[in-house]
Amino acid sequence: MPARPAGVTSYSPCVTAIAELVAVLGPGKVLTDPDVTDSYARDRTFLEPGKPLAAVLAESRDDVVAVMRWASAHRVPVVPRGAGTGLAGGATAVEGCVVLALHRMAAIRELSPADEIAVVEPGVITADLDRAAREFGLMYAPDPSSYEISTIGGNLATNAGGLRCVKYGVTRDSTLGLEVVLADGRVLNTGRRTVKGVTGYDLTGLFVGSEGTLGVITAATVRLRRAPLVYPATIAAEFGSLRDAAAAVAAIIAAGCQPSLLEMLDRATLKAIDDWKNIGLEPSVQAMLIAQSDAVDGQAVAERMRELCEDNGASFVAASADRREAEELIGLRRMAYHAKERLGSCLVEDVCVPRSALPDMISAIEDIAARHGVPICTVAHAGDGNLHPVFVFDRGLPEPPPEVWAAADEVFRETLRRGGTLTGEHGVGLLKQRWLALETGPVTEEIHRGVKQVFDPLGILNPGKAV
Amino acid sequence: MPARPAGVTSYSPCVTAIAELVAVLGPGKVLTDPDVTDSYARDRTFLEPGKPLAAVLAESRDDVVAVMRWASAHRVPVVPRGAGTGLAGGATAVEGCVVLALHRMAAIRELSPADEIAVVEPGVITADLDRAAREFGLMYAPDPSSYEISTIGGNLATNAGGLRCVKYGVTRDSTLGLEVVLADGRVLNTGRRTVKGVTGYDLTGLFVGSEGTLGVITAATVRLRRAPLVYPATIAAEFGSLRDAAAAVAAIIAAGCQPSLLEMLDRATLKAIDDWKNIGLEPSVQAMLIAQSDAVDGQAVAERMRELCEDNGASFVAASADRREAEELIGLRRMAYHAKERLGSCLVEDVCVPRSALPDMISAIEDIAARHGVPICTVAHAGDGNLHPVFVFDRGLPEPPPEVWAAADEVFRETLRRGGTLTGEHGVGLLKQRWLALETGPVTEEIHRGVKQVFDPLGILNPGKAV
Repeated sequence: MPARPAGVTSYSPCVTAIAELVAVLGPGKVLTDPDVTDSYARDRTFLEPGKPLAAVLAESRDDVVAVMRWASAHRVPVVPRGAGTGLAGGATAVEGCVVLALHRMAAIRELSPADEIAVVEPGVITADLDRAAREFGLMYAPDPSSYEISTIGGNLATNAGGLRCVKYGVTRDSTLGLEVVLADGRVLNTGRRTVKGVTGYDLTGLFVGSEGTLGVITAATVRLRRAPLVYPATIAAEFGSLRDAAAAVAAIIAAGCQPSLLEMLDRATLKAIDDWKNIGLEPSVQAMLIAQSDAVDGQAVAERMRELCEDNGASFVAASADRREAEELIGLRRMAYHAKERLGSCLVEDVCVPRSALPDMISAIEDIAARHGVPICTVAHAGDGNLHPVFVFDRGLPEPPPEVWAAADEVFRETLRRGGTLTGEHGVGLLKQRWLALETGPVTEEIHRGVKQVFDPLGILNPGKAV
Repeated sequence: MPARPAGVTSYSPCVTAIAELVAVLGPGKVLTDPDVTDSYARDRTFLEPGKPLAAVLAESRDDVVAVMRWASAHRVPVVPRGAGTGLAGGATAVEGCVVLALHRMAAIRELSPADEIAVVEPGVITADLDRAAREFGLMYAPDPSSYEISTIGGNLATNAGGLRCVKYGVTRDSTLGLEVVLADGRVLNTGRRTVKGVTGYDLTGLFVGSEGTLGVITAATVRLRRAPLVYPATIAAEFGSLRDAAAAVAAIIAAGCQPSLLEMLDRATLKAIDDWKNIGLEPSVQAMLIAQSDAVDGQAVAERMRELCEDNGASFVAASADRREAEELIGLRRMAYHAKERLGSCLVEDVCVPRSALPDMISAIEDIAARHGVPICTVAHAGDGNLHPVFVFDRGLPEPPPEVWAAADEVFRETLRRGGTLTGEHGVGLLKQRWLALETGPVTEEIHRGVKQVFDPLGILNPGKAV
């Protein structure tokens, strides 16, 4: 995969330029030792990064302003970075860039229970914000599987989803306003502190999911939501086929259960978890659904979901007796990616189909895996139609072998044929660049280029990513 | 107020150009009789429109494409129009424009209960879509007061809110994808049919609320939501002071009641309704709150809201015994604007403050009204902090007298001082142009200009509006 930017053709970085940056930022913030900068150059993909000139550890908005002014003056590409937990290469360093690491900007500047908002810096760990809100009976809803290690900044960059977003929406739905440093160092404030507002264009929404290509987010005003009063009612259902599980998902949605979590794991995923954590997986189990309801009548809803699972062929459905048991179950789900990483290198995909297409899409993936002889483990935020087929390949290989790319290519095409999208929540990054045009088409591409040009005329912001 | 576009400096429309348009579109779609076109030139504001060259009644996307190609070729400004129920001058004709009326494009192209989405044309009446969805146990959540007469297209243009948006969000929150005809006639498809997706920039969100300045929306894929199974539990509370009512609102939000509707009416508004419909308004009543809960435990929530109203000084709280009574009550609320229109010409404002600032903002408005000697009637989507102070003035005047503008100016400044916004749901249109810079600032303005330039380089789309 290419890690070189397409837009920028010549850079003029040199030792004196870096010295200038050090002089502006002060000591301890500019790292240039290649062994150190390499550790800031990668995300969680297999993608081989370019060599950064430096990694900057920003501590304030003014640091970010200084970096962007300097980068504009010297035409140096800047790759913003949160915790590096991305799965699409959005934070992968490009050759000759400065990695702008934002994890030190980790203050919750404000948390207002009365207005149900918080103002946070990009380096705040997602779960930390959620915990801070819980102190006031509130929650920060978006909860990507990685939420104990990912940052709000990274979540904003990719418009991250998560397990709860089947009920509460994705990161964009929780974002009211942003403070952004533009490519030339100007500071732009978007949005508002109010829950409604239509003054001007929706620049807030435009930045969310733009993968650091339009500006560097240095603060966000996010919406908090009322936390459920009791721990959600939880069930886990085992199925003899993945398609049955998908049919149960469709039935649960169609019945209006409004689950607050509805996750699906296939046998390969369960096996990987079982090999690691010994969960006592039965040989006949081909799929598991985990469902929660945090509604006031959650127990009744869980009971209805249990019936619908049984109606659709579930062999065993357990209602979690207590919170600890349920949390362990959800913990296993959050562990799925790490379990698969133990098997080898992973190409993690993130397709999303209209919910009614889920059973067919599941069948299509099984068929593709069989035809290409490629093992695919799939977990899904099933209630959203968001599937993560994971292609595991030999750790010795620098990138996926041709049959994996061929299988992935078919998965994308089958997704688009069903009215779906290439990426539900991970972003395009570098990884999905080659399929982007299939979904967007030439008019969208022209508009994307035009928008990019408005915000980043020199093409220095995370070049080659997202669009 | 100015109704002339700022961007376009010379137009070359003439009789032959119009003849060309008629030839392309066929008979019956191009109206040029000034008496007729004048009726397409106004919205619900007092603003005196410019004279349109013609009004085009588009029947298809291809008609819109033809109009935009023609308009680009001849540099004719185009003002898109839904039902003309706007309250900010967004659809007010500019001199020498073509009004592009979209009310004939009123098909619900698709309604998928399984995917909980609909694909609709811009001329669909909002309440009609909601009714169509109810056939399947679903609803279209956004419900501006005007929803029986406003169109989806107009709602998209202004990112309309409504009564239910305190729980279900505004129009943007229900919009998944758009079909848009750009200024030069190219067709852009944005977004998706899936509930999640992060491929490319959020162009869908960018168009929603852009007031027809970036393109003409010819279809929208919208999200439907599960309709509550029973009619919401409803209470109405009367207060001796508006500030008490606002305090009750803050208490209801802080207690986590999550109302599905929370509306406030001041005495002046109630009086206007009483004068019209004879609702038996008591002399001591200075404010009314109407609250609903559509939760499963709605009756219990309504009871809790009743207690909180009483704790905050409500003199009388009635729980509506049945659906008919509750619907009448909500009907009165929806009638508020029409009741005020009977009193004279109206300058309708639409400020929104953080919810905790509601009581103070209410006091500030009362103070401003007293100091300027200007009567202000206020209704509010109180649960969102969204206030509609309405300045009623003599119908004989062509526009609000100076003291009304001065009072409005103070209302805007007090709003912004509290971290609020000029417009919660009506849009900037022409009416709020003169205050826009106070909220946005120079960097945002530059970005707005840049974005506008990408989509509409000739400046022919609804010039002088929104940004």
